[in-house]
Amino acid sequence: MPAIGDDAAILDTPNPGSSLLASVDALVSGIDWRDDWSTPADVGWKAIMVNASDIAAMGGQPTAFLVAMVVADGFDVDGFYDGALEACAAIGEATVVGGDLSSGPTTVVSVTALGHADRPVTRNGARVGDGVWVSGPLGAASRDLRAGGGAAHRRPTAYLGQLPASATAMIDVSDGLVADCAHIASASGVGLALDEVPVAEGATLDDALHGGDDYVLVACSPVPIDTWTQIGTCVVGAGVTLNGDHVEPRGWEHAL
Amino acid sequence: MPAIGDDAAILDTPNPGSSLLASVDALVSGIDWRDDWSTPADVGWKAIMVNASDIAAMGGQPTAFLVAMVVADGFDVDGFYDGALEACAAIGEATVVGGDLSSGPTTVVSVTALGHADRPVTRNGARVGDGVWVSGPLGAASRDLRAGGGAAHRRPTAYLGQLPASATAMIDVSDGLVADCAHIASASGVGLALDEVPVAEGATLDDALHGGDDYVLVACSPVPIDTWTQIGTCVVGAGVTLNGDHVEPRGWEHAL
Repeated sequence: MPAIGDDAAILDTPNPGSSLLASVDALVSGIDWRDDWSTPADVGWKAIMVNASDIAAMGGQPTAFLVAMVVADGFDVDGFYDGALEACAAIGEATVVGGDLSSGPTTVVSVTALGHADRPVTRNGARVGDGVWVSGPLGAASRDLRAGGGAAHRRPTAYLGQLPASATAMIDVSDGLVADCAHIASASGVGLALDEVPVAEGATLDDALHGGDDYVLVACSPVPIDTWTQIGTCVVGAGVTLNGDHVEPRGWEHAL
Repeated sequence: MPAIGDDAAILDTPNPGSSLLASVDALVSGIDWRDDWSTPADVGWKAIMVNASDIAAMGGQPTAFLVAMVVADGFDVDGFYDGALEACAAIGEATVVGGDLSSGPTTVVSVTALGHADRPVTRNGARVGDGVWVSGPLGAASRDLRAGGGAAHRRPTAYLGQLPASATAMIDVSDGLVADCAHIASASGVGLALDEVPVAEGATLDDALHGGDDYVLVACSPVPIDTWTQIGTCVVGAGVTLNGDHVEPRGWEHAL
């Protein structure tokens, strides 16, 4: 594992005028992954990617990760770091700059992501008339979880493409499309009227609407977003509708 | 608990010419604290302070904390945050800017501290002839742990005084004085010859030399440090001596 070698890491500061972003997420053995489905390298990959996705959802580039691991007997820390560094390489500039390792009865991995954004995008800027766009099809993680821990569950990938310069509000689908659209609706004071939701191959509409952990980005934008798919429009109102019917967010419960 | 309200927090960037610092530490129920000794507020206080100490040990001021909590049934999250925010208030400008909350079989709290330093101080700059100085007496946490969870164990305080501008190397005593002096010796390529170690009231010399979790700062400096106590000198050689005898670092094992 990379050694921090000091009490704290010294990091690159953002360019003047750019903003510093930080997010944190913890993954727990038996809740966020199953040790018989996911290798330690899979867990390392996922821990980095879910945090990279949070930075992307703010319109930022991840630059550095800090990892705090509490490991149960037998958990392969080196394997974890292999996967984490593989994910960093896929992301680009980002790397693991520090960490903390201790032992405990259950393996828990907490990753902090730091990043920079020239123009951070929050959830609260959507305006009536904006289109609602997604970076890709939905439901793959839920489909793979149901099928016994396939790749989209074990190794989700954060959106690594160009971020939309026109986004007025953005979020990543971690709780489920409807739940995350409801977060934008509530923060922005608009309704999100969805009509056409792209469903991942082999997934159901229910997977696409309510499955979490997809890490697809949802953005509201007054102009089309290249290569993304429009799924609806921001309207006067509140909450989320699909083809005119109100859809209640469903708590995304892992069912490992 | 403070809500982050977005995928990532947007943070103040350091002044130009200043460095960004980041550190992370995880505390585990039953290993780093006992639920019958420490209230959730004590745990919140300690989780913030141990990370603030890491930033101080680099010559920096903590500015923001991110908290990832995995909580077992019945753990009082609001109580935890009361203690965490009390610690932030004691520190000054710093505050909790984001977090993640999930449930698990054992409570694990991971805190990331971010800070700024005009001149970061690492472990590797000590020079032969520098004095070795400490910010206060040692062994209090070990004494209080042995006595059944007294205040210095439950509510350690990071050094919050003025940081020495003349420090060539610095570290906080988390593993034990000898172990942490050995880290400086090894990183700087010098020996640390100690003679006079200030022992906290009621603690033993062994507590002071090998007890961890004191969060006293150790600095090497070519000139005296106001209000601090000199405990030795940097010499040609390696490792740590006390009155001429080599002292082996002892692994700091919690004995809850």
